Amino acid sequence: MIRYPNGKTYQSKQTNGGMSHQKSIYSNRGMTLEEDLNETNEFYRIHGIAVVHKKPTPVQIVNVDYPKRSAAVIKEAYFKQASTTDYNGVYKGRYLDFEAKETKNKTSFPLQNFHEHQIDHMKQVVKQNGICFVILMFSTLQEIYLFEAKFLFPYWDQITTGGRKSIPKTDVEKQGHFIQFGLHPRIDYIKIIDKLYF
Amino acid sequence: MIRYPNGKTYQSKQTNGGMSHQKSIYSNRGMTLEEDLNETNEFYRIHGIAVVHKKPTPVQIVNVDYPKRSAAVIKEAYFKQASTTDYNGVYKGRYLDFEAKETKNKTSFPLQNFHEHQIDHMKQVVKQNGICFVILMFSTLQEIYLFEAKFLFPYWDQITTGGRKSIPKTDVEKQGHFIQFGLHPRIDYIKIIDKLYF
Repeated sequence: MIRYPNGKTYQSKQTNGGMSHQKSIYSNRGMTLEEDLNETNEFYRIHGIAVVHKKPTPVQIVNVDYPKRSAAVIKEAYFKQASTTDYNGVYKGRYLDFEAKETKNKTSFPLQNFHEHQIDHMKQVVKQNGICFVILMFSTLQEIYLFEAKFLFPYWDQITTGGRKSIPKTDVEKQGHFIQFGLHPRIDYIKIIDKLYF
Repeated sequence: MIRYPNGKTYQSKQTNGGMSHQKSIYSNRGMTLEEDLNETNEFYRIHGIAVVHKKPTPVQIVNVDYPKRSAAVIKEAYFKQASTTDYNGVYKGRYLDFEAKETKNKTSFPLQNFHEHQIDHMKQVVKQNGICFVILMFSTLQEIYLFEAKFLFPYWDQITTGGRKSIPKTDVEKQGHFIQFGLHPRIDYIKIIDKLYF
């Protein structure tokens, strides 16, 4: 261990250097949107801000082996399509529900990223007065937006009448809310929700 | 198809006869608590009353096979312990969260049915002002109660100070709310929630 004259270790200085760490996250994050949201939700839970979890991947279990003296092993199972969005939880008593998607596109967000049953679920949640939105990430641009479900529905519904199959980036910017990447939490969506609903 | 003189079919008369159907459900239900709750939640969703889903069983996927021209097969996976309760959703904008458990005991409800992390999760939800409760079924007696999480915590916490490891049935009756089995929905817990919170 290398020590400076003031007694601080070389290592602790490096990890304390917020700026350089932040820089490396911003320039080449190497994180997935899911990991960022998991970290964010954990931050919210630890600090008593909100309780939000990602739902487990739904799996249809067909065959399970129960070996003696060890854990059950699932030997055959299939991925099922989820009937809801991926994330839900509670903030100040209100129900939160959202889906997170990313695109490499730079000028629009493709709606094929969503499934009919997810949109149906979001419509049910909005009717029940839940707070429902999507987190849209333009991964090439490294930009993230919170986009309320009520603004998503018209774009989705126009597809059936022959309309375009994506949301123009300019519309995402106008109707959505830009979320600045942070260190802790990484994607502070509650800040936006707080402004919009409380 | 057999027809009565009035034109009604024999079959339709049978399925319309609520009483006999109801009787058979009450006397020998042959349904699991989970099935009853799934039916109840589906009823709520279809009628726009509430949006509540059971979370998928969490599974740690280790090995997946991707055969040509057919669906991916999970070849090795393990059951993980859930970090939350099984059910959550939204009712009139408020966050709902609950766990359902059953016992064959007649005089008390054993607390071993719950896990530490589930109680921790429920405490977080209550702090966040979510509506949190457990559905307790005494399966031998065919009695179901809604028991608010805030009343469950003292019983749980007393275990660590050497207290009893179950809730006396008389306490469940006093602090909890009896739910009468129904046909549709089968376990109308929203009726209780509506009285308690709205």
